Amino acid sequence: MSDAPAKRRGRPKSKPEDAGARQALIRAGLEHLTEKGYSAVGIDEILRSAEVPKGSFYHYFKSKADFGSQLVEAYHTFFVGMLERSLSNADLPPLERLRAFTLEAEAGMARHGFRKGCLVGNLGQEMGALPEPFRDQLVAVLTDWQERTRRCLAGAQSEGALAGSHDPGQLSAFFWIGWEGAVLRAKLERSPEPLRAFSDQFFRFVTS
Amino acid sequence: MSDAPAKRRGRPKSKPEDAGARQALIRAGLEHLTEKGYSAVGIDEILRSAEVPKGSFYHYFKSKADFGSQLVEAYHTFFVGMLERSLSNADLPPLERLRAFTLEAEAGMARHGFRKGCLVGNLGQEMGALPEPFRDQLVAVLTDWQERTRRCLAGAQSEGALAGSHDPGQLSAFFWIGWEGAVLRAKLERSPEPLRAFSDQFFRFVTS
Repeated sequence: MSDAPAKRRGRPKSKPEDAGARQALIRAGLEHLTEKGYSAVGIDEILRSAEVPKGSFYHYFKSKADFGSQLVEAYHTFFVGMLERSLSNADLPPLERLRAFTLEAEAGMARHGFRKGCLVGNLGQEMGALPEPFRDQLVAVLTDWQERTRRCLAGAQSEGALAGSHDPGQLSAFFWIGWEGAVLRAKLERSPEPLRAFSDQFFRFVTS
Repeated sequence: MSDAPAKRRGRPKSKPEDAGARQALIRAGLEHLTEKGYSAVGIDEILRSAEVPKGSFYHYFKSKADFGSQLVEAYHTFFVGMLERSLSNADLPPLERLRAFTLEAEAGMARHGFRKGCLVGNLGQEMGALPEPFRDQLVAVLTDWQERTRRCLAGAQSEGALAGSHDPGQLSAFFWIGWEGAVLRAKLERSPEPLRAFSDQFFRFVTS
Protein backbone atom coordinates (compact mmCIF):
# COMPACT_ATOMS: atom_id res chain seq x y z
CA MET A 1 0.00 0.00 0.00
CA SER A 2 1.40 3.38 -0.94
CA ASP A 3 1.68 6.24 1.55
CA ALA A 4 -0.77 8.51 -0.18
CA PRO A 5 -4.09 6.66 0.35
CA ALA A 6 -3.16 5.81 3.92
CA LYS A 7 -2.54 9.51 4.61
CA ARG A 8 -5.84 10.40 3.01
CA ARG A 9 -7.74 7.95 5.20
CA GLY A 10 -5.97 9.21 8.29
CA ARG A 11 -6.93 12.87 7.70
CA PRO A 12 -10.38 12.74 6.09
CA LYS A 13 -11.09 16.49 6.21
CA SER A 14 -7.73 17.56 4.85
CA LYS A 15 -7.46 16.66 1.17
CA PRO A 16 -4.04 17.30 -0.35
CA GLU A 17 -5.33 20.24 -2.42
CA ASP A 18 -6.71 21.83 0.76
CA ALA A 19 -3.41 21.49 2.59
CA GLY A 20 -1.83 23.16 -0.44
CA ALA A 21 -4.39 25.95 -0.24
CA ARG A 22 -3.63 26.59 3.43
CA GLN A 23 0.08 26.73 2.63
CA ALA A 24 -0.57 29.14 -0.23
CA LEU A 25 -2.71 31.39 1.98
CA ILE A 26 -0.11 31.47 4.74
CA ARG A 27 2.65 32.17 2.20
CA ALA A 28 0.66 34.99 0.57
CA GLY A 29 -0.26 36.39 3.98
CA LEU A 30 3.34 36.50 5.13
CA GLU A 31 4.37 38.11 1.86
CA HIS A 32 1.75 40.86 2.01
CA LEU A 33 1.68 41.55 5.74
CA THR A 34 5.47 41.79 6.15
CA GLU A 35 5.34 44.50 3.50
CA LYS A 36 2.15 46.41 4.26
CA GLY A 37 1.03 45.36 7.73
CA TYR A 38 -2.35 44.06 8.82
CA SER A 39 -4.74 46.97 8.36
CA ALA A 40 -3.77 47.79 4.77
CA VAL A 41 -4.20 44.23 3.47
CA GLY A 42 -7.64 42.79 2.73
CA ILE A 43 -8.59 39.11 2.53
CA ASP A 44 -9.48 39.55 -1.16
CA GLU A 45 -5.91 40.59 -1.91
CA ILE A 46 -4.63 37.46 -0.16
CA LEU A 47 -7.08 35.23 -2.06
CA ARG A 48 -6.08 36.73 -5.43
CA SER A 49 -2.41 36.37 -4.63
CA ALA A 50 -2.74 32.78 -3.36
CA GLU A 51 -5.12 31.90 -6.24
CA VAL A 52 -7.51 29.99 -4.01
CA PRO A 53 -11.31 30.37 -3.72
CA LYS A 54 -12.83 32.22 -0.77
CA GLY A 55 -14.27 29.00 0.63
CA SER A 56 -10.77 27.67 1.26
CA PHE A 57 -9.98 30.69 3.40
CA TYR A 58 -12.95 30.14 5.70
CA HIS A 59 -12.27 26.41 5.78
CA TYR A 60 -8.94 27.12 7.48
CA PHE A 61 -9.45 30.45 9.24
CA LYS A 62 -12.38 31.69 11.29
CA SER A 63 -11.68 35.34 10.45
CA LYS A 64 -8.99 37.79 9.37
CA ALA A 65 -7.91 38.01 13.02
CA ASP A 66 -7.57 34.22 13.23
CA PHE A 67 -5.58 34.26 9.98
CA GLY A 68 -3.34 37.03 11.38
CA SER A 69 -2.76 35.04 14.53
CA GLN A 70 -1.80 31.92 12.55
CA LEU A 71 0.52 34.07 10.43
CA VAL A 72 2.27 35.24 13.60
CA GLU A 73 2.73 31.58 14.61
CA ALA A 74 4.07 30.64 11.16
CA TYR A 75 6.40 33.65 11.17
CA HIS A 76 7.61 32.82 14.66
CA THR A 77 8.46 29.24 13.57
CA PHE A 78 10.28 30.47 10.47
CA PHE A 79 12.10 33.16 12.43
CA VAL A 80 13.24 30.91 15.28
CA GLY A 81 14.72 28.62 12.61
CA MET A 82 16.76 31.51 11.23
CA LEU A 83 17.72 32.83 14.66
CA GLU A 84 18.82 29.42 15.93
CA ARG A 85 20.86 28.65 12.81
CA SER A 86 23.05 31.51 14.01
CA LEU A 87 22.70 31.32 17.79
CA SER A 88 23.34 27.56 17.89
CA ASN A 89 26.26 27.66 15.48
CA ALA A 90 28.99 25.99 17.54
CA ASP A 91 31.60 26.98 14.95
CA LEU A 92 31.38 30.60 16.11
CA PRO A 93 32.01 32.17 19.52
CA PRO A 94 28.73 33.35 21.08
CA LEU A 95 28.98 37.07 20.28
CA GLU A 96 29.80 36.25 16.66
CA ARG A 97 26.66 34.12 16.52
CA LEU A 98 24.50 37.14 17.30
CA ARG A 99 26.45 39.14 14.75
CA ALA A 100 25.83 36.34 12.23
CA PHE A 101 22.09 36.62 12.89
CA THR A 102 22.13 40.35 12.06
CA LEU A 103 23.93 39.60 8.80
CA GLU A 104 21.52 36.84 7.86
CA ALA A 105 18.56 39.08 8.65
CA GLU A 106 20.09 41.81 6.48
CA ALA A 107 20.55 39.32 3.62
CA GLY A 108 16.91 38.29 4.03
CA MET A 109 15.71 41.89 3.77
CA ALA A 110 18.04 42.53 0.82
CA ARG A 111 16.46 39.63 -1.09
CA HIS A 112 13.19 41.58 -1.05
CA GLY A 113 14.74 44.98 -1.77
CA PHE A 114 14.17 46.04 1.86
CA ARG A 115 10.43 46.24 1.16
CA LYS A 116 9.50 43.61 3.75
CA GLY A 117 10.09 44.01 7.47
CA CYS A 118 9.35 41.97 10.56
CA LEU A 119 5.76 40.74 10.84
CA VAL A 120 5.92 41.06 14.62
CA GLY A 121 7.24 44.63 14.41
CA ASN A 122 4.60 45.57 11.85
CA LEU A 123 1.74 44.17 13.92
CA GLY A 124 3.23 45.58 17.12
CA GLN A 125 3.22 49.05 15.58
CA GLU A 126 -0.40 48.54 14.49
CA MET A 127 -1.56 47.20 17.85
CA GLY A 128 -3.86 50.22 18.36
CA ALA A 129 -5.97 49.01 15.43
CA LEU A 130 -5.67 45.26 16.07
CA PRO A 131 -7.90 42.81 17.96
CA GLU A 132 -6.72 42.73 21.56
CA PRO A 133 -5.54 39.05 21.69
CA PHE A 134 -2.66 39.95 19.34
CA ARG A 135 -1.01 41.89 22.16
CA ASP A 136 -0.13 38.88 24.34
CA GLN A 137 0.80 36.79 21.32
CA LEU A 138 3.24 39.40 19.96
CA VAL A 139 4.80 40.06 23.37
CA ALA A 140 5.24 36.30 23.91
CA VAL A 141 7.03 35.94 20.57
CA LEU A 142 9.41 38.82 21.31
CA THR A 143 10.03 37.44 24.80
CA ASP A 144 10.99 34.10 23.25
CA TRP A 145 13.49 35.71 20.84
CA GLN A 146 14.88 37.73 23.73
CA GLU A 147 15.36 34.65 25.91
CA ARG A 148 17.28 32.83 23.16
CA THR A 149 19.48 35.90 22.75
CA ARG A 150 19.97 36.24 26.51
CA ARG A 151 21.32 32.67 26.64
CA CYS A 152 23.73 33.49 23.82
CA LEU A 153 24.95 36.63 25.64
CA ALA A 154 25.29 34.69 28.90
CA GLY A 155 27.45 32.23 26.95
CA ALA A 156 29.61 35.12 25.73
CA GLN A 157 29.97 36.24 29.32
CA SER A 158 31.11 32.81 30.56
CA GLU A 159 33.73 32.80 27.80
CA GLY A 160 34.91 36.28 28.87
CA ALA A 161 33.96 37.94 25.57
CA LEU A 162 31.37 40.08 27.36
CA ALA A 163 32.29 42.03 30.49
CA GLY A 164 30.86 40.67 33.73
CA SER A 165 29.38 44.09 34.48
CA HIS A 166 26.74 43.57 31.79
CA ASP A 167 23.38 41.96 32.51
CA PRO A 168 22.65 39.54 29.62
CA GLY A 169 18.89 39.90 30.16
CA GLN A 170 19.01 43.70 30.00
CA LEU A 171 21.30 43.60 26.97
CA SER A 172 19.07 41.16 25.16
CA ALA A 173 15.95 43.26 25.82
CA PHE A 174 17.87 46.31 24.62
CA PHE A 175 18.98 44.47 21.48
CA TRP A 176 15.45 43.44 20.50
CA ILE A 177 13.90 46.83 21.26
CA GLY A 178 16.50 48.48 19.06
CA TRP A 179 16.62 45.82 16.36
CA GLU A 180 12.88 46.20 15.67
CA GLY A 181 13.54 49.93 15.30
CA ALA A 182 16.39 49.17 12.89
CA VAL A 183 14.19 46.91 10.73
CA LEU A 184 11.50 49.60 10.65
CA ARG A 185 14.05 52.20 9.55
CA ALA A 186 15.69 49.91 6.97
CA LYS A 187 12.28 49.38 5.37
CA LEU A 188 11.60 53.12 5.45
CA GLU A 189 14.96 53.96 3.86
CA ARG A 190 15.02 50.85 1.61
CA SER A 191 18.59 50.39 2.74
CA PRO A 192 20.76 48.10 4.91
CA GLU A 193 22.38 51.13 6.57
CA PRO A 194 20.07 51.36 9.62
CA LEU A 195 20.63 47.64 10.39
CA ARG A 196 24.39 48.14 10.17
CA ALA A 197 24.32 51.41 12.13
CA PHE A 198 22.45 49.68 14.93
CA SER A 199 24.41 46.42 15.07
CA ASP A 200 27.84 48.01 14.56
CA GLN A 201 27.23 50.39 17.45
CA PHE A 202 25.73 47.63 19.60
CA PHE A 203 28.81 45.43 19.17
CA ARG A 204 31.16 48.41 19.72
CA PHE A 205 29.34 49.01 23.02
CA VAL A 206 29.37 45.42 24.26
CA THR A 207 32.99 44.70 23.32
CA SER A 208 34.55 47.98 24.49
CA MET B 1 -10.08 99.68 13.62
CA SER B 2 -9.99 96.35 15.46
CA ASP B 3 -7.62 93.55 14.51
CA ALA B 4 -10.26 91.05 13.49
CA PRO B 5 -11.68 92.72 10.34
CA ALA B 6 -8.17 93.56 9.13
CA LYS B 7 -7.14 89.92 9.50
CA ARG B 8 -10.23 88.82 7.62
CA ARG B 9 -9.44 91.14 4.72
CA GLY B 10 -5.87 89.91 4.59
CA ARG B 11 -6.86 86.24 4.34
CA PRO B 12 -10.10 86.28 2.32
CA LYS B 13 -10.40 82.51 1.88
CA SER B 14 -9.77 81.63 5.51
CA LYS B 15 -12.76 82.55 7.64
CA PRO B 16 -12.19 82.10 11.37
CA GLU B 17 -14.54 79.11 11.54
CA ASP B 18 -12.58 77.47 8.71
CA ALA B 19 -9.28 77.97 10.49
CA GLY B 20 -10.91 76.35 13.49
CA ALA B 21 -12.03 73.45 11.31
CA ARG B 22 -8.50 72.92 9.97
CA GLN B 23 -7.17 72.93 13.52
CA ALA B 24 -9.81 70.45 14.61
CA LEU B 25 -9.02 68.14 11.68
CA ILE B 26 -5.29 68.23 12.35
CA ARG B 27 -5.89 67.60 16.04
CA ALA B 28 -8.22 64.67 15.35
CA GLY B 29 -5.80 63.31 12.75
CA LEU B 30 -2.88 63.38 15.18
CA GLU B 31 -4.99 61.73 17.85
CA HIS B 32 -6.16 58.88 15.63
CA LEU B 33 -3.04 58.26 13.57
CA THR B 34 -0.62 58.22 16.52
CA GLU B 35 -2.80 55.43 17.91
CA LYS B 36 -3.80 53.41 14.85
CA GLY B 37 -1.54 54.49 12.02
CA TYR B 38 -2.53 55.66 8.56
CA SER B 39 -4.09 52.64 6.89
CA ALA B 40 -6.53 51.79 9.66
CA VAL B 41 -8.02 55.29 9.91
CA GLY B 42 -10.56 56.57 7.39
CA ILE B 43 -11.42 60.19 6.62
CA ASP B 44 -14.99 59.63 7.89
CA GLU B 45 -13.63 58.72 11.32
CA ILE B 46 -11.60 61.95 11.36
CA LEU B 47 -14.63 64.02 10.29
CA ARG B 48 -16.83 62.50 12.99
CA SER B 49 -14.18 63.04 15.63
CA ALA B 50 -13.46 66.63 14.56
CA GLU B 51 -17.19 67.35 14.13
CA VAL B 52 -16.72 69.20 10.86
CA PRO B 53 -18.51 68.68 7.52
CA LYS B 54 -16.79 66.80 4.69
CA GLY B 55 -16.53 70.01 2.64
CA SER B 56 -14.15 71.47 5.21
CA PHE B 57 -11.79 68.54 4.77
CA TYR B 58 -11.49 69.02 1.03
CA HIS B 59 -11.22 72.78 1.46
CA TYR B 60 -7.97 72.25 3.35
CA PHE B 61 -6.62 68.94 2.05
CA LYS B 62 -6.46 67.63 -1.49
CA SER B 63 -6.62 63.99 -0.37
CA LYS B 64 -5.96 61.64 2.53
CA ALA B 65 -2.31 61.55 1.47
CA ASP B 66 -2.11 65.36 1.54
CA PHE B 67 -3.76 65.33 4.99
CA GLY B 68 -1.24 62.72 6.17
CA SER B 69 1.64 64.79 4.90
CA GLN B 70 0.35 67.91 6.70
CA LEU B 71 -0.07 65.80 9.86
CA VAL B 72 3.59 64.79 9.63
CA GLU B 73 4.53 68.48 9.36
CA ALA B 74 2.34 69.41 12.33
CA TYR B 75 3.72 66.51 14.38
CA HIS B 76 7.28 67.47 13.47
CA THR B 77 6.67 71.05 14.68
CA PHE B 78 5.12 69.83 17.92
CA PHE B 79 7.86 67.27 18.46
CA VAL B 80 10.78 69.63 17.80
CA GLY B 81 9.25 71.93 20.42
CA MET B 82 9.32 69.11 22.96
CA LEU B 83 12.78 67.90 21.93
CA GLU B 84 14.30 71.38 22.09
CA ARG B 85 12.75 72.16 25.46
CA SER B 86 15.08 69.43 26.72
CA LEU B 87 18.06 69.69 24.37
CA SER B 88 18.32 73.49 24.76
CA ASN B 89 17.90 73.46 28.52
CA ALA B 90 21.02 75.31 29.63
CA ASP B 91 20.32 74.38 33.27
CA LEU B 92 21.34 70.77 32.54
CA PRO B 93 24.61 69.29 31.25
CA PRO B 94 24.18 68.00 27.66
CA LEU B 95 23.80 64.27 28.42
CA GLU B 96 21.17 65.06 31.05
CA ARG B 97 19.26 67.05 28.44
CA LEU B 98 18.88 63.97 26.27
CA ARG B 99 17.87 61.97 29.35
CA ALA B 100 15.31 64.70 30.15
CA PHE B 101 13.84 64.27 26.67
CA THR B 102 13.34 60.53 27.22
CA LEU B 103 11.55 61.26 30.49
CA GLU B 104 9.33 63.90 28.91
CA ALA B 105 8.49 61.54 26.05
CA GLU B 106 7.61 58.84 28.59
CA ALA B 107 5.36 61.27 30.47
CA GLY B 108 3.69 62.16 27.16
CA MET B 109 2.97 58.50 26.39
CA ALA B 110 1.80 57.88 29.96
CA ARG B 111 -0.79 60.69 29.61
CA HIS B 112 -2.45 58.58 26.89
CA GLY B 113 -2.08 55.24 28.68
CA PHE B 114 0.71 54.22 26.22
CA ARG B 115 -1.91 53.86 23.50
CA LYS B 116 -0.36 56.50 21.23
CA GLY B 117 3.10 56.22 19.71
CA CYS B 118 5.19 58.30 17.37
CA LEU B 119 3.42 59.38 14.18
CA VAL B 120 6.69 59.16 12.26
CA GLY B 121 7.40 55.65 13.56
CA ASN B 122 3.84 54.53 12.77
CA LEU B 123 3.96 55.85 9.21
CA GLY B 124 7.51 54.59 8.75
CA GLN B 125 6.38 51.08 9.66
CA GLU B 126 3.47 51.40 7.21
CA MET B 127 5.59 52.77 4.37
CA GLY B 128 4.90 49.67 2.22
CA ALA B 129 1.25 50.72 2.04
CA LEU B 130 1.77 54.50 1.86
CA PRO B 131 2.04 56.88 -1.11
CA GLU B 132 5.71 57.10 -2.07
CA PRO B 133 6.28 60.82 -1.24
CA PHE B 134 5.92 60.00 2.47
CA ARG B 135 9.26 58.20 2.37
CA ASP B 136 11.44 61.30 1.84
CA GLN B 137 9.33 63.36 4.22
CA LEU B 138 9.63 60.83 7.07
CA VAL B 139 13.37 60.32 6.54
CA ALA B 140 13.89 64.11 6.52
CA VAL B 141 12.05 64.47 9.83
CA LEU B 142 14.09 61.71 11.50
CA THR B 143 17.30 63.21 10.08
CA ASP B 144 16.37 66.54 11.64
CA TRP B 145 15.78 65.01 15.09
CA GLN B 146 19.05 63.11 14.75
CA GLU B 147 21.01 66.23 13.87
CA ARG B 148 19.65 68.08 16.93
CA THR B 149 20.66 65.11 19.07
CA ARG B 150 24.10 64.88 17.44
CA ARG B 151 24.78 68.51 18.42
CA CYS B 152 23.77 67.71 22.01
CA LEU B 153 26.09 64.68 22.10
CA ALA B 154 28.92 66.71 20.56
CA GLY B 155 28.36 69.21 23.38
CA ALA B 156 28.63 66.40 25.92
CA GLN B 157 31.89 65.37 24.29
CA SER B 158 33.40 68.89 24.49
CA GLU B 159 32.52 68.94 28.18
CA GLY B 160 34.21 65.55 28.69
CA ALA B 161 31.00 63.77 29.73
CA LEU B 162 31.17 61.56 26.62
CA ALA B 163 34.40 59.72 25.72
CA GLY B 164 36.26 61.11 22.72
CA SER B 165 36.25 57.64 21.15
CA HIS B 166 32.51 57.97 20.40
CA ASP B 167 31.21 59.45 17.16
CA PRO B 168 28.30 61.75 18.07
CA GLY B 169 26.73 61.26 14.63
CA GLN B 170 26.80 57.45 14.90
CA LEU B 171 25.52 57.59 18.47
CA SER B 172 22.68 59.89 17.54
CA ALA B 173 21.62 57.67 14.61
CA PHE B 174 21.78 54.67 16.96
CA PHE B 175 19.70 56.48 19.56
CA TRP B 176 16.91 57.33 17.11
CA ILE B 177 16.84 53.91 15.46
CA GLY B 178 16.49 52.31 18.88
CA TRP B 179 14.17 54.90 20.38
CA GLU B 180 11.57 54.35 17.66
CA GLY B 181 11.79 50.65 18.49
CA ALA B 182 11.27 51.47 22.16
CA VAL B 183 8.17 53.59 21.45
CA LEU B 184 6.75 50.76 19.32
CA ARG B 185 7.34 48.27 22.12
CA ALA B 186 5.98 50.57 24.84
CA LYS B 187 2.77 50.91 22.83
CA LEU B 188 2.61 47.16 22.30
CA GLU B 189 3.14 46.43 26.01
CA ARG B 190 1.17 49.47 27.20
CA SER B 191 4.03 50.12 29.58
CA PRO B 192 6.92 52.55 30.16
CA GLU B 193 9.33 49.63 30.69
CA PRO B 194 10.64 49.37 27.10
CA LEU B 195 11.41 53.13 27.05
CA ARG B 196 13.29 52.79 30.33
CA ALA B 197 15.06 49.58 29.29
CA PHE B 198 16.32 51.29 26.16
CA SER B 199 17.34 54.63 27.63
CA ASP B 200 18.86 53.18 30.83
CA GLN B 201 21.06 50.84 28.81
CA PHE B 202 21.92 53.58 26.30
CA PHE B 203 23.13 55.90 29.08
CA ARG B 204 25.00 53.04 30.79
CA PHE B 205 26.81 52.44 27.50
CA VAL B 206 27.72 56.06 26.78
CA THR B 207 28.85 56.92 30.30
CA SER B 208 30.82 53.73 31.03
